[in-house]
Amino acid sequence: MSPVDDFQVYDTTLRDGAQQEGLALTVADKLAIARHLDDLGVGFIEGGWPGASPKDTEFFRRAQTELELRHATLAAFGSTRRAGVRAADDPLVAALRDSQAPVVTLVAKSHALHVEKALRTDLAEGLAMLRDTVTHLRAEGRRVFVDAEHFFDGYRYDPQYALEFVRVAAESGAEVVALCDTNGGLLPDELTDTVHAVLQGSAAKLGIHCHNDAGCAVANTLAAVEAGATHVQGTLNGYGERTGNADLVTIVANLELKKRMKLLQGTGLVEATRVAHAVSEITNIPPYARQPYVGSSAFAHKAGLHASAIKVDPDLYQHTDPSYVGNDMRLLVSEMAGRASVELKGRELGYDLSGDRVLVTRLTDRVKAMEAQGYTFEAADASFELLLLEEVEGRRRSWFDVESWRVAVDSRGNAHSEAVVAEATVKVHAGGARHAAIGEGNGPVNALDAGLRQALRTAYPVLDGFELVDYKVRIVDAGNGTGTGALTRVLITTSDERGETWTTVGVGANIIQASWEALVDALSFGLLRAGVPAAG
Amino acid sequence: MSPVDDFQVYDTTLRDGAQQEGLALTVADKLAIARHLDDLGVGFIEGGWPGASPKDTEFFRRAQTELELRHATLAAFGSTRRAGVRAADDPLVAALRDSQAPVVTLVAKSHALHVEKALRTDLAEGLAMLRDTVTHLRAEGRRVFVDAEHFFDGYRYDPQYALEFVRVAAESGAEVVALCDTNGGLLPDELTDTVHAVLQGSAAKLGIHCHNDAGCAVANTLAAVEAGATHVQGTLNGYGERTGNADLVTIVANLELKKRMKLLQGTGLVEATRVAHAVSEITNIPPYARQPYVGSSAFAHKAGLHASAIKVDPDLYQHTDPSYVGNDMRLLVSEMAGRASVELKGRELGYDLSGDRVLVTRLTDRVKAMEAQGYTFEAADASFELLLLEEVEGRRRSWFDVESWRVAVDSRGNAHSEAVVAEATVKVHAGGARHAAIGEGNGPVNALDAGLRQALRTAYPVLDGFELVDYKVRIVDAGNGTGTGALTRVLITTSDERGETWTTVGVGANIIQASWEALVDALSFGLLRAGVPAAG
Repeated sequence: MSPVDDFQVYDTTLRDGAQQEGLALTVADKLAIARHLDDLGVGFIEGGWPGASPKDTEFFRRAQTELELRHATLAAFGSTRRAGVRAADDPLVAALRDSQAPVVTLVAKSHALHVEKALRTDLAEGLAMLRDTVTHLRAEGRRVFVDAEHFFDGYRYDPQYALEFVRVAAESGAEVVALCDTNGGLLPDELTDTVHAVLQGSAAKLGIHCHNDAGCAVANTLAAVEAGATHVQGTLNGYGERTGNADLVTIVANLELKKRMKLLQGTGLVEATRVAHAVSEITNIPPYARQPYVGSSAFAHKAGLHASAIKVDPDLYQHTDPSYVGNDMRLLVSEMAGRASVELKGRELGYDLSGDRVLVTRLTDRVKAMEAQGYTFEAADASFELLLLEEVEGRRRSWFDVESWRVAVDSRGNAHSEAVVAEATVKVHAGGARHAAIGEGNGPVNALDAGLRQALRTAYPVLDGFELVDYKVRIVDAGNGTGTGALTRVLITTSDERGETWTTVGVGANIIQASWEALVDALSFGLLRAGVPAAG
Repeated sequence: MSPVDDFQVYDTTLRDGAQQEGLALTVADKLAIARHLDDLGVGFIEGGWPGASPKDTEFFRRAQTELELRHATLAAFGSTRRAGVRAADDPLVAALRDSQAPVVTLVAKSHALHVEKALRTDLAEGLAMLRDTVTHLRAEGRRVFVDAEHFFDGYRYDPQYALEFVRVAAESGAEVVALCDTNGGLLPDELTDTVHAVLQGSAAKLGIHCHNDAGCAVANTLAAVEAGATHVQGTLNGYGERTGNADLVTIVANLELKKRMKLLQGTGLVEATRVAHAVSEITNIPPYARQPYVGSSAFAHKAGLHASAIKVDPDLYQHTDPSYVGNDMRLLVSEMAGRASVELKGRELGYDLSGDRVLVTRLTDRVKAMEAQGYTFEAADASFELLLLEEVEGRRRSWFDVESWRVAVDSRGNAHSEAVVAEATVKVHAGGARHAAIGEGNGPVNALDAGLRQALRTAYPVLDGFELVDYKVRIVDAGNGTGTGALTRVLITTSDERGETWTTVGVGANIIQASWEALVDALSFGLLRAGVPAAG
């Protein structure tokens, strides 16, 4: 099958996605993301705008030696030649060619009003800019895709120019013309007729590129495919300017799982959750829990009613099997959950509570009470397990007694200088003796962690292998219904020597107190896992 | 016009929305949210499930005296009578009636498989449960809506039962039958035919209730409306289980702005952004910046290219006027922004930099450099303005010199007891004298804030009117491309006596250091705004 007949999955995370508020990628980040996109099995990776962005020029340069793509083809994005300049003389067009990317994607204005107002030239020159640049790059041996910017608004404004644009692009040698809803305001019913008209009015292979300003980016993309488009563009995690681009994984998962189209290469869709989260680690943008398919909440069931039904048959409340996209079903322990959820959660952690209704009720009540005080167990399985054990055994296991702790942070000089010192003093009783230790760190929490560990290492040498690997802070309301008394909630993830991790939660009037609680539980749970007998 | 002919906007934030992971509302929260929903002008507010949820029973009780709704009608949600019990004898049905809500919305299974597997009864009894409960509540003087749970999957599985369900509901007196895509996996093309079939097969007024598991909740809702549904359900901010419910504001904004339907009462859509953010303050779920229409990024333009075009005409890159939904256009200052964005931002803040290209370039470079170190100015206009002034004036204005600061947090006892003490010592030079002050607080940041203010109040009495009103923390990567050295970034919002606020940013190796920087800038900016002359 020639490439033109193939359905093309085209990712623009590194270019359009990078226009998201809060996103700033280094070249190393972009190379790392490109590798993940290749793992996912997309057909094309739009790497950036070489020439216009020095960082992107560097990306394409380094990609030649550092990026080994197994599935995807690299594409360089840029604009057509400027008005009044020959394509061969335009330095930005040269940069596209010099990027060595096999594909060049040219964005050009297919909306007559934009040609006149934004480019400030006439329509004939607008088409010539397109024709000349496509022709030039084809002659230079590049495959050329064209992004028809503002296409749908442009078609409404001047359908003749818009159609002529598509024809000129195709006739000049563009392999695909992607119709872009650049402002994102299109609704699905408006799109279908336009795509049909364009397919009738030209011989071009059509692509679709949508934004989510009306909340319909995915639906618009699917509608275009149904109307005959054979090339879809989107970004991972829906990154992009304003409300973002169409979420590429959602599009592909819908088409693969519900329309039975095989679109990704390699292992494909089962990589989706891992890749989506890996990329969010690189972008440092917190993953959106409610994201379709790959979000941590996408298959998380909270209502007690749902949990009861799921005990009968998971399909009763799920639209697809989460494992198809590499995700899991999760049962949330929360105040809304009934005994069914708590019991199932206990089983997930290895405890069979089915025989003891009284225990399950008591545990459920404690969870609800603590959540009302700001705790969350949804992301802190280790804290939940300690609580469960406490209810099972009638008292909380303890490996040490804390006599006192104290932490101080010191600075000399003005606000914009550095060199703060954080020092903690921790006094505990463990292993039949009293230990007092000092901890130092780059901040109060690190200092407390160091101090607590130092104080306990004689009694519990296994602690030397533990490491604090993640730390999340959130200001929460006290939940007492009046809105007063904000609390701080901290989630700490700790790892052992084998790299296995567990997460604990702490709540307090300030970050230090909350962190301390989470730290104590983190070390306690680590000792539990390691099979170390509790004290007394 | 009788109510049946009206297009109905039905909000279920307080019931279905409350099933979102991380959301826990008190009764006071629910009453407050209901008032905001009423401000928005929705037709119906589903307040909860009285009887099943003690909190919701309380909500409906208190609503009778504490909730004065100008536009919306309250609805109580619940299930039909249990199998084998008379409606009049079922305590949960009684609770619905006793809630005194004018509307009762009954959820019942319209999917034959669910009737058999989850309810474990036969289809005849399934329909009888529906018929009896609707009839009973109508006889008790309530308006009745019916949510046909799992309708679309049920129609595919057993279309006869699904259609019979709708007929029975309508014939028993239900005013609306809302077809629910409970598992959320429906795609828009699949939905339209079903809605047509149901409209042809029954006389019921149809509603639509969608979830976002396939990323198509809004589009599905719009498709149903186009196919003839006249009642839409959704939640504010798309809250809900798993991937959430259809976002009600997005639905209504699309229908009002693009289909010219007038749906909301009162001032309507212009309240949308304010209401959406006010509700997220109550739920304490951070607002989603990329949310269509009301998100803080929804009309935020970053690409230098877009900023240049917007200088020409805002409509060139916006699908609608943000003021229609009470939102604003924002130009983001970021490394991607060119000089155009920085210049426009400066103008937004009242500085005309158009005459000084060198200055604008220098300021742009500083912004990029600082953002590479973890700062963000997108949400910290006050810090940006201080930076701008520094570039304009050649040096940073300063109202005080910091000699030193120190903060300590002390605790006695075990982790799960309370009573920590936070104390700060701050030494500054201001107003020609040296001041050393102590600050105490419930945490280190509060203590430092108190200490700094105490030290400065002799020189600057206006500080007494300032108050720290919001505080956000985030662990960020150092941005040096290697992934080492996590930093803490803090955003502090301060208000003056008139309630006007400004936000500053601080970055440091730990939360204390980052907070100190943001605090110093917060007070400095406050003094700038108050017109207090800088020192020396």
